[in-house]
Amino acid sequence: MKCTRCRASAEINLRSHHAAFCRPCFILHFQRQVERTIKRLDMIAPDESVLVAVSGGKDSLALWDVLIAQGYQTSGLYLDLGIGQYSAHSREKVERFATAHNIPLRVVTLAEEAVSVPTAAQFTNRVPCAACGLMKRHFFDQYALEGGFKVLATGHNLDDEAARLLGNVLHWQTEYLAREKPVLQPTHPRFVRKVRPLYRLSDLETAFSAFFRGIDYVVDECPNSAKATQLTYKDTLNALEAKMPGTKLSFVQEFLRSAQPLFVAPDGSAPRDCEVCGMPSFAPVCSFCRLVQEVERKQEQRQTSLNPQPTPSTDAAALES
Amino acid sequence: MKCTRCRASAEINLRSHHAAFCRPCFILHFQRQVERTIKRLDMIAPDESVLVAVSGGKDSLALWDVLIAQGYQTSGLYLDLGIGQYSAHSREKVERFATAHNIPLRVVTLAEEAVSVPTAAQFTNRVPCAACGLMKRHFFDQYALEGGFKVLATGHNLDDEAARLLGNVLHWQTEYLAREKPVLQPTHPRFVRKVRPLYRLSDLETAFSAFFRGIDYVVDECPNSAKATQLTYKDTLNALEAKMPGTKLSFVQEFLRSAQPLFVAPDGSAPRDCEVCGMPSFAPVCSFCRLVQEVERKQEQRQTSLNPQPTPSTDAAALES
Repeated sequence: MKCTRCRASAEINLRSHHAAFCRPCFILHFQRQVERTIKRLDMIAPDESVLVAVSGGKDSLALWDVLIAQGYQTSGLYLDLGIGQYSAHSREKVERFATAHNIPLRVVTLAEEAVSVPTAAQFTNRVPCAACGLMKRHFFDQYALEGGFKVLATGHNLDDEAARLLGNVLHWQTEYLAREKPVLQPTHPRFVRKVRPLYRLSDLETAFSAFFRGIDYVVDECPNSAKATQLTYKDTLNALEAKMPGTKLSFVQEFLRSAQPLFVAPDGSAPRDCEVCGMPSFAPVCSFCRLVQEVERKQEQRQTSLNPQPTPSTDAAALES
Repeated sequence: MKCTRCRASAEINLRSHHAAFCRPCFILHFQRQVERTIKRLDMIAPDESVLVAVSGGKDSLALWDVLIAQGYQTSGLYLDLGIGQYSAHSREKVERFATAHNIPLRVVTLAEEAVSVPTAAQFTNRVPCAACGLMKRHFFDQYALEGGFKVLATGHNLDDEAARLLGNVLHWQTEYLAREKPVLQPTHPRFVRKVRPLYRLSDLETAFSAFFRGIDYVVDECPNSAKATQLTYKDTLNALEAKMPGTKLSFVQEFLRSAQPLFVAPDGSAPRDCEVCGMPSFAPVCSFCRLVQEVERKQEQRQTSLNPQPTPSTDAAALES
């Protein structure tokens, strides 16, 4: 197979694009796709500093790499979720990448700042992914605000977008559909713009980008993700894509073009400041702080039940009498 | 497993309903579901005659059976599509059913009235299912009008609805989504109300209903359907349903409840009368008549090329000279 662009021997065949690329042309294709997406949707102004949320996986590191290559001022934000060896390995990869590129990286250890994901899941009724998502959103907002950033970029790719869209469509979660955009403008002065420059690039494309650019990323999936419904939706879409190449891209693109504007987020009341952390919240205490409080309360209860306080016992009463 | 209703031994387990039924209780469940759907959505008034479009398959015969059992005045409409043995068998089943119930049945043979589905597909660029759908819609409307019916019922079940919805959602065909309703009110005085009383009942439920009620239906699928994209969507939804029982029903129900009202059919101009058949059309000649004309034209062209008219040949010219 020949490269569609330069007729050299191709290394990757993109059925959904009806194109094949050699290594240098694929890297160019990937960078141009990201560049066009950023410009077309006004994701990042040329003089803006970008906070890049990095997990150590192929997507977020490929995103960071392409933003650096395109000359954006970037800083990394890594959340150590406390998920055993998986977190240890991913932290290593991210730290090495930042050091090699001499770019600032903020590492936040959830177990120190709040609670680790496994602890949150253990002491509450949440599945790990729900607790993880909630804490990620909180720390992304908090550190973007503290660092004075106007924009936060995440590595969500086309497969992530399509799977999320399918899940929201199967349940017709109209409020989520209203917010399902590759650029989310802040709804409060303490929030920042959130952008997903890879939303049109597939899992395969981000993997090849990371591989061709020599990025050392954590290959293992998060051990919690095996049970995640999101993976079921990804499998579903992969099966459809195999039969009908281009399904995922047209599903997401056509949604954004013709259906997304029909879904309107409810106006609701303006958020107040969370009494605990000060971040915007619709309740007196934000859901992140409520999660942390719930874990602390249950940890205390367990501690108490394991080491009960001495109470006047019948034996003591007998001794006294 | 016990029947959820009467505690007798169950014969069918409906995971999506968290219920199991013995034979009599399942028949009751099926009939009640249809009855409630008809009443809740004002599908058929008690005194209205219903034209039931029957294919000879389990769904349409189970529908006809339940409508008869509930005392509706019904007539059957069977279109003989001209698809070889499949059409011959299904016609037999439908005729036997009508005779056994002593209910009027109108049989329309497409090859006599217009063109058969295989001929339409052969002489045009359409896939058989597209030609078939177009002709069905035409004859349903025409015979409902001629028979003085106000309502036409079809046997589309939950699996059909969910597959169609998934297809329309994957491509975000907003005009189709606007019309995707179990009750379609007529948009022209020559059209009738179209209702789908089985839209909440699954493939499994209609099959068991037909089986338990002793209905003799054609088991084979239409030979053209093997290639139909619709089957891919059904497989996709079945895989999701197996992992998450109830997915299909909530996908369709929640769509109708919270998303469908957002999709609005474009107003457009009022249809005129087709110059050929007189049915409503947005073009001078309706798409059904254009299809028939196209087939006739191409058949004539083929005839001409096989038996060319004698023209003055060079040999004849040579003889004359």
